[in-house]
Amino acid sequence: MRFASWLARTQSSVRDHVDEFVRARCAEELDPAGFSLPGRLMIDFASGGKCVRSVFVYLGWLCGGAGESEAALRAAAGAELLHAFALVQDDVMDESAVRRGQQSAHLRLAAWHREQGLSGSSARFGESAAILLADLFLVWAERMVRESGLPAAALDRAWPRYDAMRSELAVGQLADLTNDANRLPSVGAVMDIARRKSGNYTVRRPLELGAAMAGCDETVLRVLGEYGDAIGEAFQLRDDLLGVFGDPSTTGKPTGDDIRERKATTVIALADQLAEPSDRGRLRDLWRAEFIDEQGVALAQAVITDSGARRRAEQMIGERVEHARRLLEVTDLEPSVADALHRMSLLCTHRSH
Amino acid sequence: MRFASWLARTQSSVRDHVDEFVRARCAEELDPAGFSLPGRLMIDFASGGKCVRSVFVYLGWLCGGAGESEAALRAAAGAELLHAFALVQDDVMDESAVRRGQQSAHLRLAAWHREQGLSGSSARFGESAAILLADLFLVWAERMVRESGLPAAALDRAWPRYDAMRSELAVGQLADLTNDANRLPSVGAVMDIARRKSGNYTVRRPLELGAAMAGCDETVLRVLGEYGDAIGEAFQLRDDLLGVFGDPSTTGKPTGDDIRERKATTVIALADQLAEPSDRGRLRDLWRAEFIDEQGVALAQAVITDSGARRRAEQMIGERVEHARRLLEVTDLEPSVADALHRMSLLCTHRSH
Repeated sequence: MRFASWLARTQSSVRDHVDEFVRARCAEELDPAGFSLPGRLMIDFASGGKCVRSVFVYLGWLCGGAGESEAALRAAAGAELLHAFALVQDDVMDESAVRRGQQSAHLRLAAWHREQGLSGSSARFGESAAILLADLFLVWAERMVRESGLPAAALDRAWPRYDAMRSELAVGQLADLTNDANRLPSVGAVMDIARRKSGNYTVRRPLELGAAMAGCDETVLRVLGEYGDAIGEAFQLRDDLLGVFGDPSTTGKPTGDDIRERKATTVIALADQLAEPSDRGRLRDLWRAEFIDEQGVALAQAVITDSGARRRAEQMIGERVEHARRLLEVTDLEPSVADALHRMSLLCTHRSH
Repeated sequence: MRFASWLARTQSSVRDHVDEFVRARCAEELDPAGFSLPGRLMIDFASGGKCVRSVFVYLGWLCGGAGESEAALRAAAGAELLHAFALVQDDVMDESAVRRGQQSAHLRLAAWHREQGLSGSSARFGESAAILLADLFLVWAERMVRESGLPAAALDRAWPRYDAMRSELAVGQLADLTNDANRLPSVGAVMDIARRKSGNYTVRRPLELGAAMAGCDETVLRVLGEYGDAIGEAFQLRDDLLGVFGDPSTTGKPTGDDIRERKATTVIALADQLAEPSDRGRLRDLWRAEFIDEQGVALAQAVITDSGARRRAEQMIGERVEHARRLLEVTDLEPSVADALHRMSLLCTHRSH
């Protein structure tokens, strides 16, 4: 209850800070060049998320015991812009049509190009313009941290981790691209990429970043690192389950999207590992197919359920959330902060209690 | 003579610093993930340039009167990584096949994808991987400045200009994309984009960045800004002349490449403005054509020469170099630095004396 209201308050402050910052940048940099529409698109986009990463950065900060801080909140909010950078760029690379229940940025920009009656390929323009807006998000994300009002010492502690996080994000995405879509990789390999590409950057790095800003000691950083690994993996497993069975109203994407896009996720890899030979054969044939229709999606969903992969994934999530909970018990974090970390772990792995 | 040896020494130090930094990043971030080839590509690429931007940053620093500094040189060298980011990304957007006489990054990455026998479109992979390597360059560029060893106060003066420069680069590129390829824009419009996209970021911003690091006063910054505008425009005009008449051995691109790609450059816009109605008609028809062959390139070159656009562009370059020279005379910069700035202006606008 107390957590719920704290979270709601924190999320809305993050959105306000992002909105204010992005509006200022658009007015300063995009509007004079006549790009009011891309500017508006950026404002929608930057303030549309659940702010999971910002909340983790801020919780990392609170682990330092210095208490609530508007400057730290502003710095944390920069994580939303970094995430916006990653999403806009990913959607171009994955050719995703939908993001957060809306048309993805490159498609909206392509539509804008058509409306303007400009020559050349609108699709190509949309992709290039989206890449450039992503560049702006990346630069702005960092500027938002730098101009947050945190003391220089706090920022100096943060930058090395910030740089590492951004590099890890790009390298993780690169690893994802080189994943052979025709071959289903091992669960271990998929978990490794998931950790680097999504888990680390969603939970662990944000937490460590906030904790470093607050000057937390190595013991706290170690605990947060281990908590972050566990919850990052659980978060990814949940995300992969949603990619197969998720309700569009929750995910903002059509059901079974990961199957249609033949993403080699943890859940698919688990099914490939656990399925009976005949089912495994069907799954692999499906993965080699040119195009996966509704029937194929249904088949894959059935194999994933019947093989026990779905149950196994739920079990792995439970184990990780439980491991994280025990870690928090043995630290001497402020009880309210430890409680918030525990509740966040339940929330972002979609468990009611 | 003294300048020539100073320049050669500075350029080779810049290349050494970039090479050392990029090797360390590759060993730390790319090799562990199994990307030795992209890593090598980055090393080739990052150390391949003429270091114009780094030299201007360093000259800006020297305007502060604090003298030569290895830390300032390292910070200046970061400009090469920022430039590498811009080139790799531009080549994807412009679908350019050649860069610095080599296959461009996205094509080399596509070839790597084929050699690895990975599934999916190699072309698509090459573009996505190039975008991600460009992201790494952008992050590394800034990290190189941050870790240059310059005092915090010098860096704090630099960051606002650094952020502005990076945003300006993205917005300028966006403006370039929205340039209607079918309509030839006015000379003024083209110069404006050229200033924002290339001129500013090649001469003016690097100079201002270095001068800000050195703590130069407003008077010096104003002079360097005006010098930078003039030489940036002259640089762009020269670049546009080379894009039409340039020798591949100098440009690393086929002759007339800008015509084949129907780039609306200053030189093309001048020809459209100065040509006889009949020639202007031919030029505009050519620009509307689906594809421009060797004959079309020759026709455009002839119109550009006969219209006097080529002569006019040379004249405009001369005027700007002369204006910059006079500016340097009336400042109380150290004579050796003022002389270096003058000689750099001749060098990067390709004038022997």
